[in-house]
Amino acid sequence: MLYIVESYQSGKALKEEIESRGIPAWYVELWGNYIVATPPGTKIDGLRTPVKAVVELKTDYQLVSRQWKRDPTPVVIGDREIREGKIFIIAGPCSVETEEQILTTARAVKEAGADALRGGAFKPRTSPYTFQGLGERGLILLAKAREATGLPITTELMDPEDLPLVAKYADAIQVGARNMQNFTLLKKLGRAGKPILLKRGFGNTIDEWLLAAEYVALHGNGNIVLVERGIRTYDKTLRFTLDVGAIAYAKQHTHLPVIGDPSHPAGDRRYVIPLALAILAAGADGLIVEVHPDPDKAWSDAKQQLTFQQFEELVAKAKALAKALGKD
Amino acid sequence: MLYIVESYQSGKALKEEIESRGIPAWYVELWGNYIVATPPGTKIDGLRTPVKAVVELKTDYQLVSRQWKRDPTPVVIGDREIREGKIFIIAGPCSVETEEQILTTARAVKEAGADALRGGAFKPRTSPYTFQGLGERGLILLAKAREATGLPITTELMDPEDLPLVAKYADAIQVGARNMQNFTLLKKLGRAGKPILLKRGFGNTIDEWLLAAEYVALHGNGNIVLVERGIRTYDKTLRFTLDVGAIAYAKQHTHLPVIGDPSHPAGDRRYVIPLALAILAAGADGLIVEVHPDPDKAWSDAKQQLTFQQFEELVAKAKALAKALGKD
Amino acid sequence: MLYIVESYQSGKALKEEIESRGIPAWYVELWGNYIVATPPGTKIDGLRTPVKAVVELKTDYQLVSRQWKRDPTPVVIGDREIREGKIFIIAGPCSVETEEQILTTARAVKEAGADALRGGAFKPRTSPYTFQGLGERGLILLAKAREATGLPITTELMDPEDLPLVAKYADAIQVGARNMQNFTLLKKLGRAGKPILLKRGFGNTIDEWLLAAEYVALHGNGNIVLVERGIRTYDKTLRFTLDVGAIAYAKQHTHLPVIGDPSHPAGDRRYVIPLALAILAAGADGLIVEVHPDPDKAWSDAKQQLTFQQFEELVAKAKALAKALGKD
Amino acid sequence: MLYIVESYQSGKALKEEIESRGIPAWYVELWGNYIVATPPGTKIDGLRTPVKAVVELKTDYQLVSRQWKRDPTPVVIGDREIREGKIFIIAGPCSVETEEQILTTARAVKEAGADALRGGAFKPRTSPYTFQGLGERGLILLAKAREATGLPITTELMDPEDLPLVAKYADAIQVGARNMQNFTLLKKLGRAGKPILLKRGFGNTIDEWLLAAEYVALHGNGNIVLVERGIRTYDKTLRFTLDVGAIAYAKQHTHLPVIGDPSHPAGDRRYVIPLALAILAAGADGLIVEVHPDPDKAWSDAKQQLTFQQFEELVAKAKALAKALGKD
Repeated sequence: MLYIVESYQSGKALKEEIESRGIPAWYVELWGNYIVATPPGTKIDGLRTPVKAVVELKTDYQLVSRQWKRDPTPVVIGDREIREGKIFIIAGPCSVETEEQILTTARAVKEAGADALRGGAFKPRTSPYTFQGLGERGLILLAKAREATGLPITTELMDPEDLPLVAKYADAIQVGARNMQNFTLLKKLGRAGKPILLKRGFGNTIDEWLLAAEYVALHGNGNIVLVERGIRTYDKTLRFTLDVGAIAYAKQHTHLPVIGDPSHPAGDRRYVIPLALAILAAGADGLIVEVHPDPDKAWSDAKQQLTFQQFEELVAKAKALAKALGKD
Repeated sequence: MLYIVESYQSGKALKEEIESRGIPAWYVELWGNYIVATPPGTKIDGLRTPVKAVVELKTDYQLVSRQWKRDPTPVVIGDREIREGKIFIIAGPCSVETEEQILTTARAVKEAGADALRGGAFKPRTSPYTFQGLGERGLILLAKAREATGLPITTELMDPEDLPLVAKYADAIQVGARNMQNFTLLKKLGRAGKPILLKRGFGNTIDEWLLAAEYVALHGNGNIVLVERGIRTYDKTLRFTLDVGAIAYAKQHTHLPVIGDPSHPAGDRRYVIPLALAILAAGADGLIVEVHPDPDKAWSDAKQQLTFQQFEELVAKAKALAKALGKD
Repeated sequence: MLYIVESYQSGKALKEEIESRGIPAWYVELWGNYIVATPPGTKIDGLRTPVKAVVELKTDYQLVSRQWKRDPTPVVIGDREIREGKIFIIAGPCSVETEEQILTTARAVKEAGADALRGGAFKPRTSPYTFQGLGERGLILLAKAREATGLPITTELMDPEDLPLVAKYADAIQVGARNMQNFTLLKKLGRAGKPILLKRGFGNTIDEWLLAAEYVALHGNGNIVLVERGIRTYDKTLRFTLDVGAIAYAKQHTHLPVIGDPSHPAGDRRYVIPLALAILAAGADGLIVEVHPDPDKAWSDAKQQLTFQQFEELVAKAKALAKALGKD
Repeated sequence: MLYIVESYQSGKALKEEIESRGIPAWYVELWGNYIVATPPGTKIDGLRTPVKAVVELKTDYQLVSRQWKRDPTPVVIGDREIREGKIFIIAGPCSVETEEQILTTARAVKEAGADALRGGAFKPRTSPYTFQGLGERGLILLAKAREATGLPITTELMDPEDLPLVAKYADAIQVGARNMQNFTLLKKLGRAGKPILLKRGFGNTIDEWLLAAEYVALHGNGNIVLVERGIRTYDKTLRFTLDVGAIAYAKQHTHLPVIGDPSHPAGDRRYVIPLALAILAAGADGLIVEVHPDPDKAWSDAKQQLTFQQFEELVAKAKALAKALGKD
């Protein structure tokens, strides 16, 4: 249940009143609301603290549901905004490799029309023997690229202990697919003070994805962007199966922005553009896409990163499609 | 291996020559070519029969590959054509129910811009206790709807014995997902004399789908349209997971037209339009979509069929999107 | 609903009475019962025809449910019986290749303790270019092997038109995974006069498997053995993922015998024995396993067929395990 | 590549020598060996430091491979040992709830023949609104249960920051399915000083599971037990699909002990015993199973926990089966 109250004071009072009855309660300020949340299904009669509105939902996720907050939530990244009705494009290399690489890419993707720069400094790698990212040096290079181009930057956080470090540099913090149910991390991101790009785990259901967002929101951070990036299925022709249905569903059932990553499901740059367009046509508010100055020489994900020229083609097509769908 | 020859006579001669060496060979006339096909990897030196071109492919499918036939194959259905560069929309109810139902639907979808009418007369049903279709009476009603509207009709064939009956009425014959690897049926469709809409099985890989098409082609019928309709994955939020990657892949690796069915993966009409647009954005040449005059009262698939009004909205959006992508 | 009646006459009368009320009804004689079946949920009051018992189930499958028929159904194959409480082992090559191959195998597997011989004469193959089986000649060779060893024989039927031919030779007819939802075939098998080994489709749920059995039973044939053979999942380390949970579930929810095929999920003979033992430990009533005199030279499934020696090892371990579980 | 050397000194020297050539190297002491590891495929000629043996593997995992270390690795938990050739049973409730609950359970499972007690103090929960475990208080209660029964205890670690706390109480530390690719956590467990029970992620391949073990080993901890607990597939009849093939594969390709969890894939206590027996028959070295004094009242996983009586039945059957398979 969600109890919308008038003020911080009412919220604190209500939380205490509910807890005194043995029911867990959380107080959060989100999207302009003072909210006390209790577990779904815990209806409480005869509360003394005054309440503006009570929201009862049949879903396990509550705060992020569109059933009570019908207007879409915009999320500000740097000086820009991801919001319903336009498309937001984040582009950049899989990993930050060198200063030249990241600066060249930042300039190229900005020129082509990107809204933000991505680049991995801490890389989750299946094998302990492969390149694990430049760490803080990668963050410093990203910050240089931001300085040079004005593009806000997004990068992945893996270790909760690195949160202060990553938050110092990044304009938005990515949660990788493998960490979508790292609840320790999600709770700490509730107090990150930065927007979160929450990738769906490749073995996770849509409900689990929305509940992961609920973890972040319930711990205080409402600036969440959902990122669909493909799931594991029996078919291995492409690297993952992009789930456009998840985009359509998430857009209808949550008020958060939803974007898609065409690079990981494609696994091969030949399929990135069609997947990117499918993401947008399914209703997504933007893209996060891998672009590299010389993809074949990339230190990771070499096969799937776009060249600058392909990225320009993608942006042109994406903008034409967005316009046809009535978006900015 | 594919051996392209000059004439029927050369083809027959070459087939005999190859078989005399103990290698199986098939002779087919497809897409304006005289072709002798042998299993992949069976290179034969010193053939006496003159050959125009030898095609060696690394894939298991050969005839349907775009590697040797780079121009896309158009497929004629009734008096219309599915082809690359435009979009073709097939619409109609899951099952033919009554004369009024099918005539009303035919008129409505034609008015809205559909290119063909679909309707099931023989229904593959998971339970033996549920409605199995009107059988021949359904075919007769479809033919009436064609007469009334001029729309060509497509319908599913389940029992190979019913092929003459279905071919008598239908302008194109659908192979359902559950029959995609019914090799007996596929071979017989090689001699159907009608175009085939080949749905991908919900548990089948892309390669198996293309090899199912190869079965039909190798047995003489090159008029095949591939239909992606969603696969089974661990996520059950929607009914199936639409695999837009399969569309992108099939468009690049085969010369056959590829269309998508948004109704079955959606399983709920709220998600049909976004999935339909994603199908087209991924590169498909058209759609096959379920539409019903009063979906909630439909005898099968009630939840997922579109109303006439929703179908009009879909066509309008599809056409805008197609235009933005440079299609007719 | 199932209505158990006293006699053929009552059954026919009841069927007519129910149909006269506009409800579909089927009359079958199965497992010593005279049964009229109607779709689940169709409760009918005030029937005039006398009824011994009315069975109302919450599942979509009815006849094959263990809820009303609590005693396990034995199935007779040749002069032997598959039944709960013992283990029944069917062994033989993937495909019948030559007279020597099938005779040698039949003798070896009999010697080792097999209860029946398997061998494919009609082979469902993903590619149209690969070996499709010897056809009737394969059936004749199987019959010779039966004559030589006394082992009953089982083989796959693909084309409904071949039913009389296959039924003439085989002691039990296999339905392959790809045909599990070939409803045309299932209905015809209802009148096959031979026991059916019904393989689960690799993309099908347990419920769909039980409903496929219901198709066969409702059309008159109650001699059905369920065969779990692995499903498609995202993990491709082995060929398929053997679903032992499906065995445990099917044993509790249906009265039909359940056996398992360890060869197809293993895909490699190194894993066949552990999978076979897991099948039995999960509660299966037997095994169907591929054995070949010289597996590396087999015309199909070369990697996964056992040698004679491995099969002997399997039988010894299976018997020890069965004994430990309190089986014969 | 793995370089086996004579001593700590040689190892350090070799690591430096290799790194001086620009190749990453790790030094570890594991299972009685001094090992320098470099990424697979990095063959280095002309090394000056003397080397006892060079191991070149084609797999991405190296240390945990059975190709070079053919003898199985035993893992000591408390005063007991998980090792090939016997079965080790860990049992206990999903979550530690109360002192009485955990003490009663510990006594009952010990009496029935369990080798260790499990119990969750930190619970990874899909929803932020559900019970997240007692935290340190749960650890203290587990320690009391150990004191009372002598059973070693195992419990899950979620937050890397809690490692010192958990290591203080637990005899073995569990990594949950959702954390199998939490590489930050895996690296820290390399220095945990306690054995690790590494659950396979429900969306992870077998190779990823072995590489997760490689992470732990490469960071210094060779006391790893692999735990198969079911994967996500399209079939939802049971909670997860137990992958017995993964057990068979892991036993052949790694020298680490492998156990199975039948409770989570079953999701319902009716299926736990058959799945447990299938796990053992597939070759596993033991079980980890949920048992509760009053399962229906459990605070989590109520449906799948065994009663004490069912656990006794399980142990009796498991021991009979183990004996039949030639195990202690």
